Amino acid sequence: MDFERVRRFAEIRREYGSGYINLNPIQRGGILSEAARRALLEFGDGYSVCDWCPPKTPRLDMIKRPPIADLYQDIAEFLGMDVVRVVTRCREAKFIAFRMLGKPGDYVVVDANAHYSTYLAAELAGLRVKEIPHSGYPDYRVLVELYEDKIKEVIRETGKPPAAALLTHVDHNYGNLSDAKAVSDICHRFGVPFVLNAAYTAGVMPVNGRELGVDVLVSSGHKSWAASAPTGILALTEEIAKVVLARSSIVGDWSGKSFPEKELALLGCTVMGAPLASLMASFPYVVERVQRWGEEVEKARYLCQQLERIEETRVLGEKPKRHTLMQVESLGLYEVSKKHKRRGYFLYDELKARKITGIQPGLTKHFKLNTYGLSWEEVRYVAASFIEIAEKYGLGVS
Amino acid sequence: MDFERVRRFAEIRREYGSGYINLNPIQRGGILSEAARRALLEFGDGYSVCDWCPPKTPRLDMIKRPPIADLYQDIAEFLGMDVVRVVTRCREAKFIAFRMLGKPGDYVVVDANAHYSTYLAAELAGLRVKEIPHSGYPDYRVLVELYEDKIKEVIRETGKPPAAALLTHVDHNYGNLSDAKAVSDICHRFGVPFVLNAAYTAGVMPVNGRELGVDVLVSSGHKSWAASAPTGILALTEEIAKVVLARSSIVGDWSGKSFPEKELALLGCTVMGAPLASLMASFPYVVERVQRWGEEVEKARYLCQQLERIEETRVLGEKPKRHTLMQVESLGLYEVSKKHKRRGYFLYDELKARKITGIQPGLTKHFKLNTYGLSWEEVRYVAASFIEIAEKYGLGVS
Repeated sequence: MDFERVRRFAEIRREYGSGYINLNPIQRGGILSEAARRALLEFGDGYSVCDWCPPKTPRLDMIKRPPIADLYQDIAEFLGMDVVRVVTRCREAKFIAFRMLGKPGDYVVVDANAHYSTYLAAELAGLRVKEIPHSGYPDYRVLVELYEDKIKEVIRETGKPPAAALLTHVDHNYGNLSDAKAVSDICHRFGVPFVLNAAYTAGVMPVNGRELGVDVLVSSGHKSWAASAPTGILALTEEIAKVVLARSSIVGDWSGKSFPEKELALLGCTVMGAPLASLMASFPYVVERVQRWGEEVEKARYLCQQLERIEETRVLGEKPKRHTLMQVESLGLYEVSKKHKRRGYFLYDELKARKITGIQPGLTKHFKLNTYGLSWEEVRYVAASFIEIAEKYGLGVS
Repeated sequence: MDFERVRRFAEIRREYGSGYINLNPIQRGGILSEAARRALLEFGDGYSVCDWCPPKTPRLDMIKRPPIADLYQDIAEFLGMDVVRVVTRCREAKFIAFRMLGKPGDYVVVDANAHYSTYLAAELAGLRVKEIPHSGYPDYRVLVELYEDKIKEVIRETGKPPAAALLTHVDHNYGNLSDAKAVSDICHRFGVPFVLNAAYTAGVMPVNGRELGVDVLVSSGHKSWAASAPTGILALTEEIAKVVLARSSIVGDWSGKSFPEKELALLGCTVMGAPLASLMASFPYVVERVQRWGEEVEKARYLCQQLERIEETRVLGEKPKRHTLMQVESLGLYEVSKKHKRRGYFLYDELKARKITGIQPGLTKHFKLNTYGLSWEEVRYVAASFIEIAEKYGLGVS
């Protein structure tokens, strides 16, 4: 092993970590609170939350110091669900639900705006998918009324309903908010467990699973709960928890050992340290901030309106915006890129020069951004910067 | 939501976090390096390592800033393996291996000293286990030569070899070091993939998978790599990587979407932030510290010898110790506990008064501890404290 080469890993720094306005669509809801920063260091060491693991029920969700058991109960109340577990990622929560609700070969119905990890979670659980179409360009609305047809199609084809139906509450491409209640009503008429992927909603906006008729609500701590990666939320009704959190039943053939207190699909304990502490310490901040969601949407609408003043530029997805994530289509900036010696990277360069980051380098025709948590001053500065760049390259601004 | 009640989560502190000598058997190898502490804060925000995700191959292992791709290569070299992925936990690494190497109903052969998470990983993958016996009290040595009989038994019963055979390199109960080469020789004669659970070895002692004939080496960052939880190491030979890291093949039936660049069993990306940064920053320290393993074992042997001076006290497992984790059996301390008003908690109280923690409260007859990373001064202090407590309660000390 070359020690000299290896030594550099000790000095890693995050480039553009501070002093920049970061518009990265996946990062805005995961910026830590100050309390979370303190908690990270306090619980940085491996297995740091296990100091007081109860000897008779050694399981993460039973720990009272730090108050993990209480946190899970309070998150459940916050989400209008009965039972909560923190798992390693939202995608793991989806896998756990699919694995425990389905049998290999079963179908799961998902919306066509679903994240790739939804598809992989189904595939790893051995399930097949049937997709609910969206409306296509430029709105890409999920056609939620089609869940009924699709469930019926599965019943016709297999003789039984799908193992589950999943709706992406707000999707990662357009930031469209879909009508969860409409889908849950359909699902419940057919006895199909309804999974809501709230990775972009729970933790930033008010979400109540009970009001929406959700059976399994999954979310992402590092995306929307001001927590470090990797953290996922798995929130369940009491009834569905009996299936999804089923205990281990394996028995050692020689030793006779068994582990009836362990939750099988969680593989026992999950996030045994720092990221869970960050999620816990940020929770009061999260509970408070979801109440300010209305103003967050106003800021997104303001930026949307300003960007659309630029020649041949529109925000895709539903409008008016009901979420802070947006995909911008700019044929104007794209035309500029064709003649620029830096090609598409000119936009990245121009933004970087203005201390704005998080838009994928090289993109101009379609790019995504998220205004969540920016101040009005920052949003106005971002809008003015785009308009300044457009004008610099001779694009019209209405 | 009761804000007043929720607010307390922001103030969580780790009790006995510093100023104490912590003997907790699962925590000694996971104490962060100073570099890891800095990296935790630097990369605390959610998705912090994703700033420079390559747009054309958006996958954690392809990221060069911070140098994740390089880190994976260097860890592979360090372990004598070809391909490495950091996953969320050692148990997830075991699940991934079992899920991809086996089919539901297949067998996996495991040693009877295996951790509960090995059994759960097999169960979640739909596999059955056959156990290799240990020698029983007081040594509990895994009878590694029996892997041959057990593999033959599986072949007789099912007509084919087991999906994999797993050996726990050092186990969590006795700290016994098992002969991995002996097991790999047997496995390879029968064409059975050999999985080595190096959760208690890789990262604290020198381990070379190539020399040991390992096909899949799994380890735990928060247990043995001076990293925050949750982090697991999945290290593979190039040949077995083709199976274990197989890509996704699911296709959306309406959208036609597919994700052929994503590694299925990893669900795409895994540890997208702080704990991975801590593992990276600690890696130079880990590479250096494994060279000092000999002295770590000496310290464990010293403590073992001192504890056995106490009346009716012995260290279980193989001796002389070849690892720093040990299980102590003390009929002497147990007799004291029977008459003490605090019962078994007297030992915990006495140790706490001496600023020693990490031994499970209430236990006296059998308890586990780990000396890894303690200074000679600390080990001597721990030994003297136990002897002082024994003498205080009238036990003989030879």
